[in-house]
Amino acid sequence: MNTHIGIFGGSGFTGIELVTLLAKHASVKLTTVTSDRQVGEPVRGAPALKYVSHEEGASAKLDIALLATPAEVSLKLAPKLLARGSRVLDLSGAFRLKDATLYSKFYGFEHTEPALLAEAVYGLPEVHRATARLVANPGCYATAAALALRPLIHANAIDPSNIVITAASGVSGAGRKASEEYSFMEIEGDFRAYKVLSHQHTPEIAQTVGVKDLVFIPHLLPMHRGILSTAVVTVRQGDVAAILRDAYAKEPLVRLLPSADAVRVTHAARTPFCLIGATTNGNKAVIVSAIDNLLKGAASQAVQNLNLMLGLAETEGLSL
Amino acid sequence: MNTHIGIFGGSGFTGIELVTLLAKHASVKLTTVTSDRQVGEPVRGAPALKYVSHEEGASAKLDIALLATPAEVSLKLAPKLLARGSRVLDLSGAFRLKDATLYSKFYGFEHTEPALLAEAVYGLPEVHRATARLVANPGCYATAAALALRPLIHANAIDPSNIVITAASGVSGAGRKASEEYSFMEIEGDFRAYKVLSHQHTPEIAQTVGVKDLVFIPHLLPMHRGILSTAVVTVRQGDVAAILRDAYAKEPLVRLLPSADAVRVTHAARTPFCLIGATTNGNKAVIVSAIDNLLKGAASQAVQNLNLMLGLAETEGLSL
Amino acid sequence: MNTHIGIFGGSGFTGIELVTLLAKHASVKLTTVTSDRQVGEPVRGAPALKYVSHEEGASAKLDIALLATPAEVSLKLAPKLLARGSRVLDLSGAFRLKDATLYSKFYGFEHTEPALLAEAVYGLPEVHRATARLVANPGCYATAAALALRPLIHANAIDPSNIVITAASGVSGAGRKASEEYSFMEIEGDFRAYKVLSHQHTPEIAQTVGVKDLVFIPHLLPMHRGILSTAVVTVRQGDVAAILRDAYAKEPLVRLLPSADAVRVTHAARTPFCLIGATTNGNKAVIVSAIDNLLKGAASQAVQNLNLMLGLAETEGLSL
Amino acid sequence: MNTHIGIFGGSGFTGIELVTLLAKHASVKLTTVTSDRQVGEPVRGAPALKYVSHEEGASAKLDIALLATPAEVSLKLAPKLLARGSRVLDLSGAFRLKDATLYSKFYGFEHTEPALLAEAVYGLPEVHRATARLVANPGCYATAAALALRPLIHANAIDPSNIVITAASGVSGAGRKASEEYSFMEIEGDFRAYKVLSHQHTPEIAQTVGVKDLVFIPHLLPMHRGILSTAVVTVRQGDVAAILRDAYAKEPLVRLLPSADAVRVTHAARTPFCLIGATTNGNKAVIVSAIDNLLKGAASQAVQNLNLMLGLAETEGLSL
Repeated sequence: MNTHIGIFGGSGFTGIELVTLLAKHASVKLTTVTSDRQVGEPVRGAPALKYVSHEEGASAKLDIALLATPAEVSLKLAPKLLARGSRVLDLSGAFRLKDATLYSKFYGFEHTEPALLAEAVYGLPEVHRATARLVANPGCYATAAALALRPLIHANAIDPSNIVITAASGVSGAGRKASEEYSFMEIEGDFRAYKVLSHQHTPEIAQTVGVKDLVFIPHLLPMHRGILSTAVVTVRQGDVAAILRDAYAKEPLVRLLPSADAVRVTHAARTPFCLIGATTNGNKAVIVSAIDNLLKGAASQAVQNLNLMLGLAETEGLSL
Repeated sequence: MNTHIGIFGGSGFTGIELVTLLAKHASVKLTTVTSDRQVGEPVRGAPALKYVSHEEGASAKLDIALLATPAEVSLKLAPKLLARGSRVLDLSGAFRLKDATLYSKFYGFEHTEPALLAEAVYGLPEVHRATARLVANPGCYATAAALALRPLIHANAIDPSNIVITAASGVSGAGRKASEEYSFMEIEGDFRAYKVLSHQHTPEIAQTVGVKDLVFIPHLLPMHRGILSTAVVTVRQGDVAAILRDAYAKEPLVRLLPSADAVRVTHAARTPFCLIGATTNGNKAVIVSAIDNLLKGAASQAVQNLNLMLGLAETEGLSL
Repeated sequence: MNTHIGIFGGSGFTGIELVTLLAKHASVKLTTVTSDRQVGEPVRGAPALKYVSHEEGASAKLDIALLATPAEVSLKLAPKLLARGSRVLDLSGAFRLKDATLYSKFYGFEHTEPALLAEAVYGLPEVHRATARLVANPGCYATAAALALRPLIHANAIDPSNIVITAASGVSGAGRKASEEYSFMEIEGDFRAYKVLSHQHTPEIAQTVGVKDLVFIPHLLPMHRGILSTAVVTVRQGDVAAILRDAYAKEPLVRLLPSADAVRVTHAARTPFCLIGATTNGNKAVIVSAIDNLLKGAASQAVQNLNLMLGLAETEGLSL
Repeated sequence: MNTHIGIFGGSGFTGIELVTLLAKHASVKLTTVTSDRQVGEPVRGAPALKYVSHEEGASAKLDIALLATPAEVSLKLAPKLLARGSRVLDLSGAFRLKDATLYSKFYGFEHTEPALLAEAVYGLPEVHRATARLVANPGCYATAAALALRPLIHANAIDPSNIVITAASGVSGAGRKASEEYSFMEIEGDFRAYKVLSHQHTPEIAQTVGVKDLVFIPHLLPMHRGILSTAVVTVRQGDVAAILRDAYAKEPLVRLLPSADAVRVTHAARTPFCLIGATTNGNKAVIVSAIDNLLKGAASQAVQNLNLMLGLAETEGLSL
């Protein structure tokens, strides 16, 4: 409990989940939660604390700072926090892509911290247990899709040049919104694709899976939370389901289901698990995966990374 | 088709329903639709027309102007339109309450047109077939509640001093919203009361039912459209269900169901009907009624009134 | 951990919540979970156990048996379990009503265990901390409504002869259903009253509040979980909000909100709390309360009672 | 009005839509509606009629019989009706697939009417205006997907060997269900794939698009109605959006939108239109299409076919 933790952006959907998880984590002490728009109010999920501004938070003494802020904000906060000796676990996309030139295209800004980008470690625990000074927590879609595909590329089981992923997310993935677009009247009863062939998680998925390119198309679901990813691949060799089962046999937070049809959003929602199921027919395989976008897609995965950064058991603080 | 009709506020939820109904009405010609925020765009529901500003609409030659505008806007538009010789059918609350002093309390403004307020006729067709120069179209909650109760007061069947109404409405009743309060994330899965003991339809219901006072408590439902009103009354004499059945036996747009339990929002939604059912136990009776808040609670009731103002069949243009 | 607990009816919605709570309760050991329709399958929420039949469960050595079974089943199980020396905490209505003659009217069966009914203690912890051999866990609607009203009757603040309660519940309150009536197509977008003036919780609320009679009308909401109760009362004397605030000042699981409008289902859902807010206007007061029907309305309240029966801290095992 | 029409299976979701459309169709007379489970009750959507049994319906004198029955039932009804001189428009899959051997694999029965199967004409009006004695009305998914892809194959614009379609449908696509699987509690908040690589519309889409094989994966949406189809293709030559725009320039019921992102289920729901939008990036194109599964995916498309069979204007009876 001598490890002091701060959460930046603690009043957003992901921030609230982070607070809730870390407030009851037995081995760390949550001392600082920032929210530029709710300064002075009690912290939701930890009412003994009060939200402070990002600026005040950045001057606190923190062993690890978790950034649940937009990428542009994380890009400015991270160097300040690192300079003060805090380690940083960033939940935005600011430090995820190894190719800095992709930021202008997919995030709409030039990356101003190329040295930190090079230093940052991408923390998808089932792929790489990161213990670095600066860890990038994976994106929600990227987590669901990459966990479904990476072992298959690694085993040379599928054609890396012909991967199609469609995915669908609950509305919380878009963050808090005061817009007509995200009003109940517009969302309820609707389903649509968005950012078709241009979503910023496309290069993140490709980088993590280990392929040059792929097709990724996200859709918006009329529900609070959860992601379902449906990946269609061409099989080269091997048993897709068996490869996945072997790859995750010892993983505490990945569960293999008997088929692609068996994977349901409601069974992943409000859990830290990724559910995966595969169905093959001829040389085509479909791998469906589901996560809670705010947990395995953000906050509970951040707790995995925080535990790894501190040398704790990876699932501490995640009620399983 | 020589009757020229204009709709003011034609891009809101009610306005779009009005346009859709009047664009295919065989006996009137929709010539003008206003929307201050979408000037120049094709009219939704009547794409051959383009939205014009309220100001431009107010200078058009119109036999009848329908106002689907906020009460404050109707209060300013109505005198202008009447002065130019148009008749006015107002869907806002601006001309509904006979006691002008209630406006500051329930609508938040002083009524500036007391003479017009005195002249205006409240057009609940099943109570009064209005053919006046200025007709006030009833509110959505008031329609559902008043149709359930007025015949009972009229028959002296229930205690007028002890009426409790709780009601629930779909989100479209609040109009278009770009606010976090009406975002999908806030509304979905929630249910709550609002404006408890202070909703502006309370005096409108009392006035229409013919009682001095009553309790009315609205709630917000996580669905697009529909209102359910649940009225609890103390019976003095007579058979509540029979009184209601007799009262509406010849009404084309009111349907009596065999019990309070039989009334469902989905059976009223997207129809111009009011459904009513009553259940009695001892000296207590419960009358449940349901309407579509945008139709019988606004647009289709306005078409009834328009037809009456023009001497047409009351249900013309309402596909039954 | 020497206290052995069994759950009967462990695969229903309430049963699963009970299992989830008790599987991680530090002071008791969940040893037996029954489900007549899933015998032999792993227990959901405690996969190290397997469901056994009610019969097999009834022969286990249990310190306390929790019955999440229909009232008729509880009526048969309770005497057997008591005879074997287990204490019984029944979540059905079988032992809630002190007047045995009400069972034929409200539950559809004659009560066959009048002696046990007389012995049973009604365990609404905020009203009475029960430590008996046979405890009846309150109903969901009754919990929400009685907590809102009992202190007001006790303080003689409201007219006991004129109480009207309307309430609305999510669909889980009806239990698992394989019927068209509870299909997604019928429920989604609908809202309706049911069991009008005949719901079995009516006498339970009256008995708990301490009045002779009242009006209670439940409605069905298109959502998974949560109850909102809206009570309308006539004030005799005193400050309704202050009386409620005082009554629950030291209660860990009741939270007073500043007004009736402030109470929302989503803020009570997935928590063990009852939220209450009151608004007064003249001699009328409206008290709105909200709970999670499966938690404070069933499973988490049962944990409160279990803790009391065992002399443990009342909120142990409820993550607050 | 001398043309007598019968609807078989008139109480299902599609049947009710058919009744509603044909009851107000100006050029035909709806004389017979069957429903084996509601014999004698008033027909929903045409209460002047009463449901009769399939057997009684089959002995009526009908110019055209519309079959909204399961495939096995249509397979038995069609020859009887044709033998009595009625023409048949079948909305099931019984007469859609030209290769009879596919029925055992995809429909679970051997096709017993190979001669009729050979005679039947597949009636996707935008592809082929059918005027035959026996017309097969296309499936809902097949309509959405085939309209998006067929012009591209026809123009040799895309690789026919590498087509991936994922699609999602509202729950009404499954028909009336009294099962826990389709209960509100199971569907609400969930999203999942089903019949992965084995759905019966896969060969229907391939046949209609004109390719040998393709990947089609349907998903289930927590909403009443609507289908969104997302097709991913590899471009060989030409401008995908322009080809689609040209192909449907004169089609009254297909609307091209400016991009794949612009297509929304709610804009197609409750209309007879198919909305299509395409987005291209490099050699990949995504074509998103949306329809109402019960209208353009079933009933309104059947009205198009009925009109064509009778030499009427294709869109008569469809309020546009």
